[in-house]
Amino acid sequence: MEQKFVFMFDHEKAVGKEMLGGKGANLAEMTRLGLPVPYGFTVTTEACNAYYEAGEQLSEAATIQIKKSLEKLEERTGKTLGDTNSPLLVSVRSGAVHSMPGMMDTVLNLGMNDDTVKAIADLTHNPRFAYDSYRRFIQMFGDVVLGLDNSLYENFLENYRTSSGYTSDVQMTAGDWKEIIEAYKKITTEAAGRTFPQDPYEQLFLSISAVFDSWNNKRALLYRRLHDIPGHLGTAVNVQSMVFGNMGNDSGTGVAFTRNPSTGKSELYGEYLINAQGEDVVAGIRTPQPINELKREMPDLYSELMKMCNLLENHYKNMQDIEFTVENGALFFLQTRNGKRTAQSAVRIAVEMVNERIVSEEEALLLVDPDQLSQLLHKHIDPEHTSQKLVTGLPASPGAATGEVVFDADRAELLSNEGRNVILVRPETTPEDIHGIVAAKATVTSRGGMTSHAAVVARGMGKACICGCGSINIDLESGRFTVADTIVEEGDVITVDGASGDIYLGEIATIEPEMSDVFRQLLGWADNTSTLGVRTNADTPEDVRKAVELGAEGVGLCRTEHMFMNSERLPAVQKMILAESEEERNKALNRLLPMQQQDFERIFETLRGRPVTIRLLDPPLHEFLPNVEELLVDITRLELTEPESVELGRKQKLLRSVRLLEESNPMLGLRGCRLGMVHPEIYEMQITALFQAMTGVLNKGIDVNPEIMIPLVSHVAELREMSGLVHKVAKEIGGRNGISLNYLTGTMIETPRAALTADEISSEADFFSFGTNDLTQTTFGFSRDDAEGKFLQYYIENGTLPDNPFMKLDQEGVGKLVESGVSLGKQTNPQLKTGICGEHGGDKDAIRFCFDKGLDYVSCSPFRVPAARLAAAQAALYSRQERKSVLQPG
Amino acid sequence: MEQKFVFMFDHEKAVGKEMLGGKGANLAEMTRLGLPVPYGFTVTTEACNAYYEAGEQLSEAATIQIKKSLEKLEERTGKTLGDTNSPLLVSVRSGAVHSMPGMMDTVLNLGMNDDTVKAIADLTHNPRFAYDSYRRFIQMFGDVVLGLDNSLYENFLENYRTSSGYTSDVQMTAGDWKEIIEAYKKITTEAAGRTFPQDPYEQLFLSISAVFDSWNNKRALLYRRLHDIPGHLGTAVNVQSMVFGNMGNDSGTGVAFTRNPSTGKSELYGEYLINAQGEDVVAGIRTPQPINELKREMPDLYSELMKMCNLLENHYKNMQDIEFTVENGALFFLQTRNGKRTAQSAVRIAVEMVNERIVSEEEALLLVDPDQLSQLLHKHIDPEHTSQKLVTGLPASPGAATGEVVFDADRAELLSNEGRNVILVRPETTPEDIHGIVAAKATVTSRGGMTSHAAVVARGMGKACICGCGSINIDLESGRFTVADTIVEEGDVITVDGASGDIYLGEIATIEPEMSDVFRQLLGWADNTSTLGVRTNADTPEDVRKAVELGAEGVGLCRTEHMFMNSERLPAVQKMILAESEEERNKALNRLLPMQQQDFERIFETLRGRPVTIRLLDPPLHEFLPNVEELLVDITRLELTEPESVELGRKQKLLRSVRLLEESNPMLGLRGCRLGMVHPEIYEMQITALFQAMTGVLNKGIDVNPEIMIPLVSHVAELREMSGLVHKVAKEIGGRNGISLNYLTGTMIETPRAALTADEISSEADFFSFGTNDLTQTTFGFSRDDAEGKFLQYYIENGTLPDNPFMKLDQEGVGKLVESGVSLGKQTNPQLKTGICGEHGGDKDAIRFCFDKGLDYVSCSPFRVPAARLAAAQAALYSRQERKSVLQPG
Repeated sequence: MEQKFVFMFDHEKAVGKEMLGGKGANLAEMTRLGLPVPYGFTVTTEACNAYYEAGEQLSEAATIQIKKSLEKLEERTGKTLGDTNSPLLVSVRSGAVHSMPGMMDTVLNLGMNDDTVKAIADLTHNPRFAYDSYRRFIQMFGDVVLGLDNSLYENFLENYRTSSGYTSDVQMTAGDWKEIIEAYKKITTEAAGRTFPQDPYEQLFLSISAVFDSWNNKRALLYRRLHDIPGHLGTAVNVQSMVFGNMGNDSGTGVAFTRNPSTGKSELYGEYLINAQGEDVVAGIRTPQPINELKREMPDLYSELMKMCNLLENHYKNMQDIEFTVENGALFFLQTRNGKRTAQSAVRIAVEMVNERIVSEEEALLLVDPDQLSQLLHKHIDPEHTSQKLVTGLPASPGAATGEVVFDADRAELLSNEGRNVILVRPETTPEDIHGIVAAKATVTSRGGMTSHAAVVARGMGKACICGCGSINIDLESGRFTVADTIVEEGDVITVDGASGDIYLGEIATIEPEMSDVFRQLLGWADNTSTLGVRTNADTPEDVRKAVELGAEGVGLCRTEHMFMNSERLPAVQKMILAESEEERNKALNRLLPMQQQDFERIFETLRGRPVTIRLLDPPLHEFLPNVEELLVDITRLELTEPESVELGRKQKLLRSVRLLEESNPMLGLRGCRLGMVHPEIYEMQITALFQAMTGVLNKGIDVNPEIMIPLVSHVAELREMSGLVHKVAKEIGGRNGISLNYLTGTMIETPRAALTADEISSEADFFSFGTNDLTQTTFGFSRDDAEGKFLQYYIENGTLPDNPFMKLDQEGVGKLVESGVSLGKQTNPQLKTGICGEHGGDKDAIRFCFDKGLDYVSCSPFRVPAARLAAAQAALYSRQERKSVLQPG
Repeated sequence: MEQKFVFMFDHEKAVGKEMLGGKGANLAEMTRLGLPVPYGFTVTTEACNAYYEAGEQLSEAATIQIKKSLEKLEERTGKTLGDTNSPLLVSVRSGAVHSMPGMMDTVLNLGMNDDTVKAIADLTHNPRFAYDSYRRFIQMFGDVVLGLDNSLYENFLENYRTSSGYTSDVQMTAGDWKEIIEAYKKITTEAAGRTFPQDPYEQLFLSISAVFDSWNNKRALLYRRLHDIPGHLGTAVNVQSMVFGNMGNDSGTGVAFTRNPSTGKSELYGEYLINAQGEDVVAGIRTPQPINELKREMPDLYSELMKMCNLLENHYKNMQDIEFTVENGALFFLQTRNGKRTAQSAVRIAVEMVNERIVSEEEALLLVDPDQLSQLLHKHIDPEHTSQKLVTGLPASPGAATGEVVFDADRAELLSNEGRNVILVRPETTPEDIHGIVAAKATVTSRGGMTSHAAVVARGMGKACICGCGSINIDLESGRFTVADTIVEEGDVITVDGASGDIYLGEIATIEPEMSDVFRQLLGWADNTSTLGVRTNADTPEDVRKAVELGAEGVGLCRTEHMFMNSERLPAVQKMILAESEEERNKALNRLLPMQQQDFERIFETLRGRPVTIRLLDPPLHEFLPNVEELLVDITRLELTEPESVELGRKQKLLRSVRLLEESNPMLGLRGCRLGMVHPEIYEMQITALFQAMTGVLNKGIDVNPEIMIPLVSHVAELREMSGLVHKVAKEIGGRNGISLNYLTGTMIETPRAALTADEISSEADFFSFGTNDLTQTTFGFSRDDAEGKFLQYYIENGTLPDNPFMKLDQEGVGKLVESGVSLGKQTNPQLKTGICGEHGGDKDAIRFCFDKGLDYVSCSPFRVPAARLAAAQAALYSRQERKSVLQPG
């Protein structure tokens, strides 16, 4: 049987969104549910892939099927493409499997030409509408299909408007549009080297190809990378008969969310514009009305809309984001999809939908994306602050941020790459600005509403955004904005509060967020579902306390070197490192011991018996020492200016000592357990501090469960010797205090050799903790410090690597080592405890991977703990779903 | 049945040397062959292992068996331990599976006590001999068994000698020895806190335990590590009735080699001492006579010795190293073993034994250790040189070496670790000096002969050695030696020629060696046997020519960056790297292109169609640039002295450019194919040069077979993109010249990720070359530059690692990646060619590993090629032997 590349909206066969794309599948679903949907058909994602395989060429089969489907559409609507009596106009829209708002191209009003425009003018008795629609079509076609610069048209329009003395397009007459149409056709011919096609079939096929092409435009590629959408999925194309929201004041267009996407409140939420086409709302060019105004203006229509919205939400078991158009008083649905929402909203919706018995607890867990949750734990503006706000806009995406004002996406990216915090301020944003929104801490626009591009994108990213802030006057040329008399120059610091829409001059104090009750409830369900432990990486009692509050079961990584870094202790640390005799070194170590002991005591007291993995000193010693280059410069200067000074002698001596510790590749040098092997007195001090602290805390009646971790092992003999030292000290201190100390010893698996010989290493270990940061460095041979600046960014942009492997666990390479490390390790030691403590420990995909490979826990930074708890629950649910679908195929 | 821990020398059951040790097995074998061997028995290696398992305790079973065996020995000899009529004296000697000359302990004259000494004085009518033997026994027992410092005895003896006005021990009378014996017993009691045991049984069991203990002494541990001998083998102990070479002038002791161990000539070779015990020869304290003197002195005995030596050589099918003793005119054999020999000797013996039909060609191949062969290719002293030699000693081990004089093994090691060449000069060496011999380029002794400790050890290591150089007068105190009027201070440079025994002041020119005909013949047999290819790592036409002469089948690694390093080209390279525009960079690249093209042309012409693996640019670019620290110092100085100078501005600009390329871990930074990805113009220049050179050489009618290697790939996409560049350039240049260029593209597998994803990578590769140097660095997480200086040495001395993994392939870890790299790679691409090109490529164990894992070739430095060819043949032979022994058990 011939492959089916096209499906009518009311097709009978069950076809999924993998074929039809999200939009196409939902249009078919709404049609099936009996909602008023303008008729049309979907060209499948398979047609898109076939198109690319054939070298960007529509196959004959697809072409024939499209023509046949068009005939059915003409039959059903009683209109015909290009017909001068009853002309059919259609929209051509992209529709990928995953929603990619605004990233791909759309063509509206297709079918318009010099003949049909007249027919429409006659049929609608509205020539102004007809010619406006035609000029819009030419402009869109030139931009999207022929790839022309939209400003060619916009500049002409602007000039025409000004020279005619108009202030708004509303003042244009049909005659004006006619003149503009002629000019647009000329512009098109000159810029494209071809005429604007009058043949509607040519228009149609060129447009379908253009939408397919837009799957691989720069914006779409970036968006897919940001949202982990694979490139092989392709996009479908929806061809649908047009309805017009711009036919007069009984027409309009709008967007409705079935619940509030910002707060999660159960209410119809959205905006509409009278006498406008849908693109006007989404593009944020005109500021629309809140949807509850519609209740007053068109009560019947509003109640019909409400009914349909509830129907859709119940059907999809999820909050819906719906596009509708009113044409001469009749309601049409153009799209429905799962609505994007803030984390706060997502959590509230999930919990309330359980309470309303729309979804089960487990279904609710899948309604929240773990990646969003950290938003809820972001700082807020301190409500006690006394600063006067500068201005208020629409609170489009919550969160507080402070940064320098920039007016351009490229510049935002540039400064952000230099490590500066920036706030992007734009009249409005377009998909071309997406890299600036990514780079900025927050985005502010003077135009556009809650569903404008900037708002949707920022909410998806969990970044603060304020929209439609009309009181600010942006002067892009001179790089400033004004609010009444206040002038804010590029580079000035402002603070924005995305939750209130308030903007302040300068920096404002922020406070820690509180966990809401619904959030706690959701995470409780998550913990009931999950079997994977969640610990935290925390080095201070403060971090430990925070993490426990956020639900950490214990500490998966406590880095003892961070305790050495503060300015009070550094002198003793330096003395210890630079000691020229064992005696001198021991003296310095004796000074550090009580400090480290106190740190451990406070952490143990905070944890009250929860397990804590304590990693002995790991970084190269010279990290604690003065910089060689600075010393060299000082010495050179002193040699010339004060050659006899004591200072010079001191610095020369210091330089010699520091030089002895210099390394060409410190990442692979004398660090980790190698330090402990060569200078066992350092580890011995740490272990002594640990067990003395343990003894003290146990004596207070508080349980302590330390897991002592030897870092950077690559051969079992290293672990054997260092564990021996631990046991020796434990015996001594336990003996002295007449108690037996319970603890585990284990190692961080962070070199490939450790993973490859895990069967040997586990014979000496109670636990493994996979240090996937370092393991990624050694497995790829990438130094993170160097790679990210020098080539990794290029690799990702170029598509060489799908992701930054330091952010997303490389399951193919590094993951293989984790997998074999776990299975080899358990082969020799079935009781082996396994966890992961790299930065990946907080990433949902890595968590899924760890669950699948049988690890016991993940460990991540305190603020990632709630996300990890949810992701751990989802991993269990997804795996259950997969097992089911394997057991019950179909 | 009870485990058998002891075997008499004439036991009937076939027991191998795994149980009896080499010495014990050979004593039994000689006994069986009918040679005159003093009777005795062997305590097995299993008894040694049981001894260690029981916490250094002899089992009851072993004790009983030893007593029973002693009874048999007494019965056969008609003598009884401790008996005052016919006292039995025995030796107790170690004997491990692998010969470890001088590393473990020996006790002679056991059975002597205050009573038996009198009996022996009477029986031999030689009281001086009896009391000298007794004092030797007390001294040896104190040193070896009780662990006392030998100098306690030696100092006393020295004082006694001086105060008696004697110049040599020969002047001592029986009365003197009696006095000394009383003093020695007192010294023993005071130092050991126990009396010297008079009970011969106590003497025996304490001595056996002491020999077992010596298996794990420091010297033995180091020797085992150096020679890859596993620690679990244990040592056997041989208890044998004593014969005495020091009974007068019709007695003596000697060492005979069945062929010349230095040249390989078929002649009885060796030394003997009249009226001496065996230890006197081995320890090198007295300088012995050449063995052909014996022919004159004792012609009958000499001819009996000759006959027996031939018998042993034919029996063992190998050159033998034999210890004999003559007691009152009767010949006794105390030991035979395969003789250590120089490489030159080994090759000649192997080939001549085939000619003499003693061994087959294949057996001959196994008679030569590949590790030795590079000696044959070492430089010799230029015979044309005109320098006057300082002095001549015995040519104990061939090879020429130049270095600073040091007089102490510790100091030799210290300076050598600093990268300095040293020559160790000692009166004599003892096993305690072994680390100094390892560290030095050559060893010179003023005492001792060709079979002295220094000579045996140096020959085994292939290091130059001159012994018995009596004309040099060593003053250890003041750190100098004198030869007549010439004073040589510590630190002065000398040159030694181990082949002639000549020593020169200062540095002498050396020349390349020639390959002998026997060497060629042996390697011809090796090539017939081997199936593993041997290529070479060579970057210049000169190296390529040398390697081809030495039998390389092609080039396995040609590093193109070495072509960039010479001073003529460096300015263009620096311009290329620091270019601020693409245009500037291309200009610099265009200057480099013809140079690189010429390099390739010359290499292709030399190879005449042999394959050559060319690796594109690999090291980080800043390796070609000025040093940042030097620039900083210059700038600081100029800022203070010439703040307005042009030079300052230039250096500041240069510093900024160099800084941009700085990396914290350059080994893991922007290098290898990452350079090619980010700066494709560099690789494009190299590829263009390569294909233009190829075209030119093909046009001369010379075949060219390049294999283009993309370095440091960690993801298949890197290889795909860079191979694409190769194909593009090949097509262009081929097209322009109207020919189709044949070449392969492939990659170096040198990151763990490449090995782990070899199945993906091989889909884009014609070949893999395992870069085990870098693969070892990333697998262990060791930077070689840092590790070797900072902790690796410690790890090896401490026993943490069995070997330096940069010298010996780590089969457990790195080897796993090689193995899975090959099998995954061939899974996707069965035609995949595989090789190894790290430094391990020349190591025999790594070659065996590569053969077993199915690699196609190894590649090593030109001078390692002959060794690799032999090792490849041996790998095939060993594997055939193993297969046979699996197929025909027993």
